[in-house]
Amino acid sequence: MENYLRLIDEALLQPQFPGEPRSLYYPAEYMMSLGGKRIRPVLVLMGCDLFGGDISKALQPALAVEVFHNFSLVHDDLMDNAALRRGKETVHTRWGRDIAILSGDVMLVHAYELLAKAEGKVLPQILSVFNELAKRVCEGQQLDMDFQQRNDVTEKDYLKMIGLKTAALLGGSFKIGALIAEANPEDAAKIYDFGYGLGTAFQLHDDILDTFGDEETFGKKIGGDIIENKKTYLTIKALEVGTAEQVTELEHLYNLINPLPPEEKIKRVKKVFEELNIANLALQKRDEIYNNSIQKLESIAATTEKKNILLAFAEGLMQRVK
Amino acid sequence: MENYLRLIDEALLQPQFPGEPRSLYYPAEYMMSLGGKRIRPVLVLMGCDLFGGDISKALQPALAVEVFHNFSLVHDDLMDNAALRRGKETVHTRWGRDIAILSGDVMLVHAYELLAKAEGKVLPQILSVFNELAKRVCEGQQLDMDFQQRNDVTEKDYLKMIGLKTAALLGGSFKIGALIAEANPEDAAKIYDFGYGLGTAFQLHDDILDTFGDEETFGKKIGGDIIENKKTYLTIKALEVGTAEQVTELEHLYNLINPLPPEEKIKRVKKVFEELNIANLALQKRDEIYNNSIQKLESIAATTEKKNILLAFAEGLMQRVK
Repeated sequence: MENYLRLIDEALLQPQFPGEPRSLYYPAEYMMSLGGKRIRPVLVLMGCDLFGGDISKALQPALAVEVFHNFSLVHDDLMDNAALRRGKETVHTRWGRDIAILSGDVMLVHAYELLAKAEGKVLPQILSVFNELAKRVCEGQQLDMDFQQRNDVTEKDYLKMIGLKTAALLGGSFKIGALIAEANPEDAAKIYDFGYGLGTAFQLHDDILDTFGDEETFGKKIGGDIIENKKTYLTIKALEVGTAEQVTELEHLYNLINPLPPEEKIKRVKKVFEELNIANLALQKRDEIYNNSIQKLESIAATTEKKNILLAFAEGLMQRVK
Repeated sequence: MENYLRLIDEALLQPQFPGEPRSLYYPAEYMMSLGGKRIRPVLVLMGCDLFGGDISKALQPALAVEVFHNFSLVHDDLMDNAALRRGKETVHTRWGRDIAILSGDVMLVHAYELLAKAEGKVLPQILSVFNELAKRVCEGQQLDMDFQQRNDVTEKDYLKMIGLKTAALLGGSFKIGALIAEANPEDAAKIYDFGYGLGTAFQLHDDILDTFGDEETFGKKIGGDIIENKKTYLTIKALEVGTAEQVTELEHLYNLINPLPPEEKIKRVKKVFEELNIANLALQKRDEIYNNSIQKLESIAATTEKKNILLAFAEGLMQRVK
């Protein structure tokens, strides 16, 4: 695991973009330098290694996935009017709307350039997987924005949205690695499903942490989703299973034109969640999806030793507290 | 020529995008439906045909180039705050900033999907050409925005900018067609240069028409570039060759906090241009670049009959009055 990450970090030490025009490429370099967990490129390497592939051939496509992820963050941050990313100014906060749009665009193109460094014989397949996941990420972001305007989002809708926005990229990263290793189509489909399930469980885990995590270990303020009126699994589930009175209370809290002071709002929303035992319902759903994904992993034709590396990684993701 | 265009128009009658989420894909369909001259996809087919390729194999990559062009227009219109495109509301005017960003993004991804329908044996090459031109278009748009803030843009800078923003896509469209026809690298490079020169000449032609065209035949208001303070070849050349007095007059007219009434401003700018014979200087530069591009065309190893089709097309572009 650390070995994979070291390879990615070393590769990312090289400048990714041309020097000129600096006004276009510097914001892209800045975004890439903000760090992050580099989960997605690691998955590409893991997917390749699982099937005995040469991971040096997977390195550039792995960077492609990371650059793509960062492109989507630049544009999402702008659409969400987010001021900070990883504790630093977002691209649009620092350089304005136009630079965020155009630097994001060129990052997306650059992701394809990195992907195109894969061997010709696997290129059509991995390009097709990449195109599919890129569309899904856009669709997921669109549904996420649409959902903020709707009051009838179901649990199923929500799982579909996070599947598109988050899980498809994790599944696709694994699959790209597998295809570089020339895994058979069946196993490539299975590792996609494993990654997709893992990504979904991971997002539910994140939803739970944002409201019920420990502020010290979580590393950021608890309750951010509540303050921003974000429709997470917790809110959607509470609106589904709550009494009329509880639903009214939540809708009231989320729709106030002059919101309550943050601490007060968080306290009252959490009170409803706790009455309904929402954290446990979310944990159950997370575990159900997680366990299904592990079954997919187990069914893959690869050595137990290699599968255990992926299992340990998955377990680590689910135990993460920040 | 009409034959190529008919193939493109027929293909574009099919919906390009999935139905859902409609909020994401409908604006993309709308943009594609606004029409335009479809020059770029025609160039792909022409480039393929010139080298005896099967143009049915070039059709999807030709659409890729047209979808890419429309993606860039969606984002450029937003960055330029343009209200209208081809006489209709721009995407961001109709659906807002966020939809314009995200629908544009998914159009870019879709362009790659269409490109990926090319045969596997030519895919690595055409993907590489496409990535290169896509980066150049972004770089050109960035330089264009940067130039609006600068007062020291030279003729050379300007030609570089329009080369990146406009000409690279025309050259690249030809080259993609040529590579689908498995033209040799030398001829593929020559047709790129032909398209690049033609694209540059075409943009200079456009700059001249916008200020000196006939309003009736041009089909839109003359002087739009002057009103929007756009730095075109005409302004850059006038600032270069004008007397101190003429330069002061132009800088005064372009930098007024409260601009003059449009007709008055156009009249005074045109007066300086006419004193300096700028339209002729621009025509000379246009013709010089155009003639060089025709020499490139002539040096290509293909039949005179086929080259004459491209020549007629190029002549038509230069004679266009709207």
